[in-house]
Amino acid sequence: MEKRKLETCFSPALFEPELLHDPIVVIIDILRASSSICTAFANGAARIIPVGTVGEARAHKENGFMVAAERDGYVLDFADFGNSPYNFTKEMVEGRTIVYSTTNGTGIIKLASSASCIVIGSFLNLSSLVKWLTAKDKNVLIFCAGWKNRFNLEDTICAGAIAERLMSTSLYSTICDSTHAAIDLWLLARNDVMGYIEKAAQRSRLREKGLDDCLEFCLSCDFTDVIPVLRNGVLETVDLSDQA
Amino acid sequence: MEKRKLETCFSPALFEPELLHDPIVVIIDILRASSSICTAFANGAARIIPVGTVGEARAHKENGFMVAAERDGYVLDFADFGNSPYNFTKEMVEGRTIVYSTTNGTGIIKLASSASCIVIGSFLNLSSLVKWLTAKDKNVLIFCAGWKNRFNLEDTICAGAIAERLMSTSLYSTICDSTHAAIDLWLLARNDVMGYIEKAAQRSRLREKGLDDCLEFCLSCDFTDVIPVLRNGVLETVDLSDQA
Repeated sequence: MEKRKLETCFSPALFEPELLHDPIVVIIDILRASSSICTAFANGAARIIPVGTVGEARAHKENGFMVAAERDGYVLDFADFGNSPYNFTKEMVEGRTIVYSTTNGTGIIKLASSASCIVIGSFLNLSSLVKWLTAKDKNVLIFCAGWKNRFNLEDTICAGAIAERLMSTSLYSTICDSTHAAIDLWLLARNDVMGYIEKAAQRSRLREKGLDDCLEFCLSCDFTDVIPVLRNGVLETVDLSDQA
Repeated sequence: MEKRKLETCFSPALFEPELLHDPIVVIIDILRASSSICTAFANGAARIIPVGTVGEARAHKENGFMVAAERDGYVLDFADFGNSPYNFTKEMVEGRTIVYSTTNGTGIIKLASSASCIVIGSFLNLSSLVKWLTAKDKNVLIFCAGWKNRFNLEDTICAGAIAERLMSTSLYSTICDSTHAAIDLWLLARNDVMGYIEKAAQRSRLREKGLDDCLEFCLSCDFTDVIPVLRNGVLETVDLSDQA
């Protein structure tokens, strides 16, 4: 049986349309967008509409939507809240539709929009995501948001955690150097992820802005089993009971 | 004393003009362009003219230059030879000017051309390069050629080897995640570089094309002390005796 292909893209700047040979695209932006999206669904959000621009986010706010929007960590003035996962509480999000725009995370969803399937990944839904991916007979592209087009360590080690588990199933093969590097860095980091991330630039940025209270949470595995999937431009979580 | 900045760029696709805050740019394309350039100077080449396009290479050939040119590993039909370091023998290159165009290596020299200083790095000139860099009071950008804009393992570990030595001098600081990743991958690889590179895509490509005879040579440290520096579009090696 031919194995499924596994590839990793470290940044939107490294994205090539050829990477989309019919894979499931896993979007990773763990500090903080993909962690917040997973948290929102864990707390009962009905759907999340990712939008790329501040203008789109503002227009949705004017049309009555709840809007989460930030740039460089700061909440935009018209938004209901920013992108700390701690904002997406049960009280705020349960049963609601949220419009969401962030510095790096929502932009790459647009970039990968021609993919047949886009799913949101983070440490928070790691085991559930890996189980869901392996149940599909599809190639996988792990697509890291990075930071303003740059490589970053935190998304890379999360990509490595996913890739390492997928490769250990023997269902996948890879000839992608980025995937090998991500796995190697994850294996270095996994026994002390908080310690490893100390040297990451985003770790310093969040500390300087006083936004690092959620760091340990974002680096913790398996808070939830949600699988946020994009359908017609809207994120909804897969009903796992239907899939069993 | 303020420390010098050290940054690493994994691919031309990740290059941003802001990275050029007056650094020395170290170009890395170890399989095979930067290794071949170091070998050519070690064997007495007078100068190397890097050209980006096949058309430029052909025009130089018509004007009587010795031309090394390849695309995807294959020697172009009009060229004197391709880009294996074994082509650049003393018999072929001593005292001569060589025009050189390769798939990835010469293109990024053009991309970084506004930098005040561009130097060629490889494992072959590692110790000499590090010594030369530390003697300058300048920031350093290590710029990996990658493969067709993609991240690759072999240039990354060479970048890591350089970065690890520079950081150990305490003269440099970095807030660059790519630099940290490169160092970590180098530390993983260094005890068995040939073994580590087995999983690299370029290792398989070279094997399939029968071009991997030079692999062990390209991964070996300190074959030469040449420092190929770009001046007015031409590579020449620094006279180290002048600098002592």
